[in-house]
Amino acid sequence: MKTVKLGMIGFGNVAKGFLEALQQMDSFYKSEYGLEFVVTAVVSQRFGCVYNPQGLSLEKLIKAENLSQIKDVERKDWNAISMIHQSESDAILELSSTNLVNGNPATLHIQEALMSGKNVVTSNKGPIALNFDDLQKIAVQNNLKIGYEAAVMSGTPALMLGTDLLRHNGILSAKGIFNGTCNYILTEMEKGLEFDEALKLAQEYGYAETDPSGDVEGLDTAGKVAILSQIIFNQNLTPDKFEFSGITKISKKDIENGLKEQKRWKLIGEVKKVDQEIIASVKAQLLPMSDPLANVMGATNAIQYETKLLGKVTLVGAGAGRLETAAGILQDLINIYK
Amino acid sequence: MKTVKLGMIGFGNVAKGFLEALQQMDSFYKSEYGLEFVVTAVVSQRFGCVYNPQGLSLEKLIKAENLSQIKDVERKDWNAISMIHQSESDAILELSSTNLVNGNPATLHIQEALMSGKNVVTSNKGPIALNFDDLQKIAVQNNLKIGYEAAVMSGTPALMLGTDLLRHNGILSAKGIFNGTCNYILTEMEKGLEFDEALKLAQEYGYAETDPSGDVEGLDTAGKVAILSQIIFNQNLTPDKFEFSGITKISKKDIENGLKEQKRWKLIGEVKKVDQEIIASVKAQLLPMSDPLANVMGATNAIQYETKLLGKVTLVGAGAGRLETAAGILQDLINIYK
Repeated sequence: MKTVKLGMIGFGNVAKGFLEALQQMDSFYKSEYGLEFVVTAVVSQRFGCVYNPQGLSLEKLIKAENLSQIKDVERKDWNAISMIHQSESDAILELSSTNLVNGNPATLHIQEALMSGKNVVTSNKGPIALNFDDLQKIAVQNNLKIGYEAAVMSGTPALMLGTDLLRHNGILSAKGIFNGTCNYILTEMEKGLEFDEALKLAQEYGYAETDPSGDVEGLDTAGKVAILSQIIFNQNLTPDKFEFSGITKISKKDIENGLKEQKRWKLIGEVKKVDQEIIASVKAQLLPMSDPLANVMGATNAIQYETKLLGKVTLVGAGAGRLETAAGILQDLINIYK
Repeated sequence: MKTVKLGMIGFGNVAKGFLEALQQMDSFYKSEYGLEFVVTAVVSQRFGCVYNPQGLSLEKLIKAENLSQIKDVERKDWNAISMIHQSESDAILELSSTNLVNGNPATLHIQEALMSGKNVVTSNKGPIALNFDDLQKIAVQNNLKIGYEAAVMSGTPALMLGTDLLRHNGILSAKGIFNGTCNYILTEMEKGLEFDEALKLAQEYGYAETDPSGDVEGLDTAGKVAILSQIIFNQNLTPDKFEFSGITKISKKDIENGLKEQKRWKLIGEVKKVDQEIIASVKAQLLPMSDPLANVMGATNAIQYETKLLGKVTLVGAGAGRLETAAGILQDLINIYK
């Protein structure tokens, strides 16, 4: 049995989903892969750090709303950076909130972890969309790995499908539906709601945030397209380098007109190779019903690769969710340590 | 640069598609993976064996209709077994025609190759559906690999999606549309044809063979379900151990009635874990349009995994074709040698 000690940055939804998923799958990973994952440290911005080099109780962590509620455990006055340096941990899970402007503080955390000899797994789009080149250089120099599968389509293996299973076919393009909020809104509008009504419903169900602009104006999708550009085409195309737009200008009438022609509006993020150039875009498109992407409904996501040898391959699955995001983090951890 | 020498058994459509795909992608594999694949021997049942330990010309092989047409090259009176033993080759590609009764001669070829210290890649369902346990034992004893991705959904990575990218989520079931001929026929019947008329059309377009019974009565799908049972659930469930049926009893009227309820008939192969038991089946099912499998049309195939952590994940892509099958064979070769 190999024991892998994890230091976690962040104690929000993603972190808690990870702890729940690990509790569910723990015995399977021990028997299937001979791997035991132990959480030794959790640090949050508001409530400091809990620490046990032998491993914290998953049950206690899962029950706690915040770190201050966890009793009978050593507390440290560490922030994320000091946790990285001082905790006993083999890998750092960077689960702080996404920043698509400069990637921080996640980028700083990942840099620090790599320079301290620790592997990193993150679900955070910012550092991978914006700073991957620099981070990957440090990782390679130190013979370490960065895992980022959860940053696009949560645990649905959108990235590894391309890098591990399709690359040898000659990838020409990658496009898809990468924002569940937008796809949910478009699906509800097909039932007769105007954009504003559908957005309100999405907020009530927790699909959309109070400030939904990052979703409905396309920035979130642009971040994912930037990641695909980097990981699939090895090209640094940050969201400020290409045009992106969202679904705010689509009306109920547009959707009805599309349906009359057997077509559906979808917010499509795309990156493709044209001659030797890599071109990225995010915009709402009217797709014929025969396109597998046209049939992806509700909060579900999908990615479609076009390849030279194999034509089009489409993967449809969850794009968000607590356990679903955890699935992506666990995929990276198992890949690094098995 | 690592050079991998290949001995090929069979010179039919799959073999020729492989040679064409290799010619297209050769320089990419050299630069991307540092791998050079060289075909040293090709043996066919009717036209003997051509051999060049330094590598045969891909161009000459591609142009030839059969092996007798290849000039200026050494001919050997080897059959498949003697080619395995006497050719300089690191891996054997077993590309003879499928036999779902006892797996031969492919199973014998694979066994012989493994016992001679050579890796094997096959697109042949028979040996994997029927004899995998025994073959895998020999492979493990000799520290060798068997590649079989192309046996289900050609190059669409249906199997590795499960084994490499989804296993850690706890796979509960794998089901899908695994026979393009049946799905093509059902799609045409939706346009108003009766079964017999649609079958005739499928034969005209080359989707269905002169004797289409293996496709339309479900045996081909049952072979793929047997492979999934073996590879995903490690359970030997050959087609004689479960019930399977096809689409011969579905009428135009049935399809119309389904559409009235917003449902579609699909031939679904499935293997699932119920308590600790693995249950396999192949039968036509009426799926609601909201199911991603209901929207897979024409000769396209799809597989849907259900998992504990991630829910349902669906992969849609080619299920057959020359280059598409080659894509699966190349995936295995690259996985073994990179």
